[in-house]
Amino acid sequence: MTNPYMEIAIQEARMAAEEGEIPVGAVIVKGNIVISRAHNLREKMGSATAHAEILAIDEACRILGRWRLDDCDLYVTLEPCPMCAGAIINARIRRLYFGAADPKAGAVGSVVDLLRMRAFNHTPEIYEGIMESQCRKLLTDFFKPLR
Amino acid sequence: MTNPYMEIAIQEARMAAEEGEIPVGAVIVKGNIVISRAHNLREKMGSATAHAEILAIDEACRILGRWRLDDCDLYVTLEPCPMCAGAIINARIRRLYFGAADPKAGAVGSVVDLLRMRAFNHTPEIYEGIMESQCRKLLTDFFKPLR
Repeated sequence: MTNPYMEIAIQEARMAAEEGEIPVGAVIVKGNIVISRAHNLREKMGSATAHAEILAIDEACRILGRWRLDDCDLYVTLEPCPMCAGAIINARIRRLYFGAADPKAGAVGSVVDLLRMRAFNHTPEIYEGIMESQCRKLLTDFFKPLR
Repeated sequence: MTNPYMEIAIQEARMAAEEGEIPVGAVIVKGNIVISRAHNLREKMGSATAHAEILAIDEACRILGRWRLDDCDLYVTLEPCPMCAGAIINARIRRLYFGAADPKAGAVGSVVDLLRMRAFNHTPEIYEGIMESQCRKLLTDFFKPLR
């Protein structure tokens, strides 16, 4: 099963791979409109925070002119890390859709489960495994020649 | 007891308060040199990610031209939230010094303890309670007139 927004996130991830970046892509959607799309740019930007989700959230905040994205949904090819899960809380993202799980650094169930902790002041709806095999293949294809 | 870098972080937090922002300040130090300093700008920038720590890390990465800050230490007036704790992991910050604990959203022992989880690929040294009463007072003074 496909999802049109996750397909855009996958396109973004492919752009990352072409630039030698770990292929992760993210899209922010409000209603049926794509507000922002981004991919991991850690190496190119030389920035520890330049994950796809952070870049997409920053861009959506710029475009909408506000930090609160409680009417927005985030699609990302990989389970968010703690930084990105924390940004999802801080931005009050309404729904999170992600593709592949990240057993090494995933903060939405794999290593820790930040987005289901009621102690924080926001818990988004979570939908996982969206176009999972395509999302996982992006990463296995990227790391294969490096091993 | 005072700490010269935490004093700079406190100055930054005061600048935030003057601008109507929740007063949190952060400083990144390499050797004895202040590489970057920043304060919370969430409202002014309209950005969910514009916490003091993220802005200081981004600026340090720009200045040093690399995402890996494993020779840098971060001073921050308040216990980092999950997003900022995650950014500390991602940037491989060597040592974290913080002032006041954050019982509501702290991710370095209060609500969750991300930076001591061996599952993640980096665990900084952690020093807490640095100039704690001054750091806490910044926040209580800020929120007092609002209540």
